Amino acid sequence: MEAWKTYQEQHKDRFLNELLELLRIPSVSARTENKDDMIACANLVKQRLLEAGADSVTIYPTAGHPIVYGEKMIDAGKPTVLVYGHYDVQPADPLELWNSGPFEPVIKDGKIFARGACDDKGQFYMHVKALETLTNTNSLPVNVKFIIEGEEEIGSPNLGIFVKEHTTLLKADVILISDTAMLSIDNPSIDVGVRGLSYIEVEVTGPNRDLHSGVYGGAVANPITILAHMITSLHDENNHITIPGFYNDVVESSAEERAELAKAPYDEAAYKEELGVTALWGEKGYSTNERTGIRPTLELNGIWGGYTGEGSKTVLPSKAHAKISCRLVPNQKHEVMTELIINHIISIAPAGVTVKAAPHHGGDPYMTPVDSIEYRAAAKAIETTFGKAPIPVRGGGSIPITALFEAELGCKVVFLGFGLDSDNLHSPNEKYDLVNFYKGIETIPYFHAFFAEMKQ
Amino acid sequence: MEAWKTYQEQHKDRFLNELLELLRIPSVSARTENKDDMIACANLVKQRLLEAGADSVTIYPTAGHPIVYGEKMIDAGKPTVLVYGHYDVQPADPLELWNSGPFEPVIKDGKIFARGACDDKGQFYMHVKALETLTNTNSLPVNVKFIIEGEEEIGSPNLGIFVKEHTTLLKADVILISDTAMLSIDNPSIDVGVRGLSYIEVEVTGPNRDLHSGVYGGAVANPITILAHMITSLHDENNHITIPGFYNDVVESSAEERAELAKAPYDEAAYKEELGVTALWGEKGYSTNERTGIRPTLELNGIWGGYTGEGSKTVLPSKAHAKISCRLVPNQKHEVMTELIINHIISIAPAGVTVKAAPHHGGDPYMTPVDSIEYRAAAKAIETTFGKAPIPVRGGGSIPITALFEAELGCKVVFLGFGLDSDNLHSPNEKYDLVNFYKGIETIPYFHAFFAEMKQ
Repeated sequence: MEAWKTYQEQHKDRFLNELLELLRIPSVSARTENKDDMIACANLVKQRLLEAGADSVTIYPTAGHPIVYGEKMIDAGKPTVLVYGHYDVQPADPLELWNSGPFEPVIKDGKIFARGACDDKGQFYMHVKALETLTNTNSLPVNVKFIIEGEEEIGSPNLGIFVKEHTTLLKADVILISDTAMLSIDNPSIDVGVRGLSYIEVEVTGPNRDLHSGVYGGAVANPITILAHMITSLHDENNHITIPGFYNDVVESSAEERAELAKAPYDEAAYKEELGVTALWGEKGYSTNERTGIRPTLELNGIWGGYTGEGSKTVLPSKAHAKISCRLVPNQKHEVMTELIINHIISIAPAGVTVKAAPHHGGDPYMTPVDSIEYRAAAKAIETTFGKAPIPVRGGGSIPITALFEAELGCKVVFLGFGLDSDNLHSPNEKYDLVNFYKGIETIPYFHAFFAEMKQ
Repeated sequence: MEAWKTYQEQHKDRFLNELLELLRIPSVSARTENKDDMIACANLVKQRLLEAGADSVTIYPTAGHPIVYGEKMIDAGKPTVLVYGHYDVQPADPLELWNSGPFEPVIKDGKIFARGACDDKGQFYMHVKALETLTNTNSLPVNVKFIIEGEEEIGSPNLGIFVKEHTTLLKADVILISDTAMLSIDNPSIDVGVRGLSYIEVEVTGPNRDLHSGVYGGAVANPITILAHMITSLHDENNHITIPGFYNDVVESSAEERAELAKAPYDEAAYKEELGVTALWGEKGYSTNERTGIRPTLELNGIWGGYTGEGSKTVLPSKAHAKISCRLVPNQKHEVMTELIINHIISIAPAGVTVKAAPHHGGDPYMTPVDSIEYRAAAKAIETTFGKAPIPVRGGGSIPITALFEAELGCKVVFLGFGLDSDNLHSPNEKYDLVNFYKGIETIPYFHAFFAEMKQ
């Protein structure tokens, strides 16, 4: 066995305990009340990177949450791998649906349950431990840089600025991101694309105050009813999105690509059972994998208005709100799409209400070419540790910064993700399987080695 | 001047201060946290009735909040007036829209601002002060009974049981309710009808947990989107309600009645301006007054689902909820209508979601005949104090217990209301004009006198 594998075996319990410590910090980027936790988390990431062998680590303040940058430069002549990850997590609510505290990680049935277990603390930390392993066994074949940010879950509003201002510092040959999922341990896969995102918030205002629904009911536009009408109008009877121009920039997948995607194992009965639904839903003419991979979507992420408390209140509310996000595919640009969506939503407001719509955040879609060295090094690493070549799939999620990374740093992004779709990302009871965590720590050194070889 | 008028003039400041004390108690019947406040409020009502001259006052416990019953019996041969009112109030939220504390009443521009100022503490308390006036000036011409309940705002779930069990105790010749509005001080009016109510809550469940909107978006029915579709389907393009059978029992108003209703002063420009809307909305073929008076409605009172906090969360939620209420008109029966609505809503649930719908509360519509002694006594009293005959109008609100009162006690209900539509009932900054409060205290003794005369 290679020395570094023995090292990992000897230190695996400590690796896990260190991850649990990281998971105990409620680093929710969306909540101002967690601002101090964000700083504490950035400090812990810095400390762990230094312990893992990084030459230097700096915490860069931003207009929002800080960015942690670290590097281990062994030889300017060797290729450089830039690892991107994020230490922030999604809000944990609804809290009542968690079986244990979201920030009190527990191990059960070989899985770590905690907010951020998979997305993304558990995944970026594999890279920290891979660095430690290779440093301490004198086997690091590449230079490694780390950029671990604190605002991924709120759309990375400050990361783009930082990247643009630090292109020399961040210069690399490949960007490696572990923030996606694979099909299963038995069917390893690599995401060759992530969708883009346009996220907006809508406010519909009817009367200038909450009204008595008996005195005024029937005579004044109810903003909830109007918002429901507007939402309904955004899809047609085939679940195509009706916003004019929405599909203009979509690159339709070829028959070959669709045939390739169809090879991914998919068991509709199991999929439905796992979600607890009796029927699926989606755009006519596309399979489930296509609906979540190659097609853009429009989803309601939240809605509220009127009286939502206990019991009843006969109110005709003044306002109703919705959070709406679209997943984008090549070559949709998030800035263009966000403007298109906002303008459309404002344009369909009927008389009797006023509608405001504002952007939250966005990002462009991204694709990794399967014939690139970067992809091939990742595929070979996976095949080495999993004993099976990975299936290239199109991921449904978004990592808004990826398109900007390539544009600014001039190198490809590879999504070396070890999560599972069933890891309850953004949901109660988020988990990460221990086997995936350890497989990831084992796979990353192979990536470094194969990439260094192929890049020669 | 009559002695009782002089008495009122002398004691008006105390009358007001006593009302303010009552308004300081947050007697929100919908909130379990206010249970003790409800008891404190019932006790204060009892004390004030005794001070006003009631022979006896009893607080009757119920399965919910207690009922206060009091009486002043002067002569079994004289007519008996049963005054009904309620000491509970609507929830005060959204609190941030109040200019002063909802339970810290302030007087500004001749108006009392507080939750319950008009609905209904300010209005039932006029009857307590009218009793005090007539008792202390030896001029009470009728027996007076009071039934002041604590659950009107949650649909009077226990009052019906109490009434059925105490028909002898409550025996009366007329039921007088001050819990409605008049057009204005210059255009006094009497509600000759109140609408009924069916109030339900709907829960739409899609997947068995909140999902990542990227991983699953586009492939699974989103309960918010589905709920929006369902809500939209409940009205057609003319804003008629589409629930099959919904209008079956509606008594269409005659051309004469519609012509009579059209006489009520109505200034559309002022109406829109006061509500801050540029256009009105409603059922095609009917005027605003008809839409809020003689036509049934379906309004959304609340909606919620998914992430509603600060910032953004890319979730495809498991559940979405709505509170929906219908106002009913003669001869719609709330039990029949509630079942009809619930069955319809469940029937339109598409595959991929499950829908639950449950009743909150309801009540039947009620009409007072304009040619009855009861109505004529009220009209004459209003004319005496306002110098102008009241316009009979159809009120849009609901007082769920009225139909049951007539059925169980065998006497008519008269709505002697002194509020204004602009009093922000159920809204932030609820108010009651001092002039209306004092006019009410002055009008009620005339009603007693005229009713006693006419009933001879």
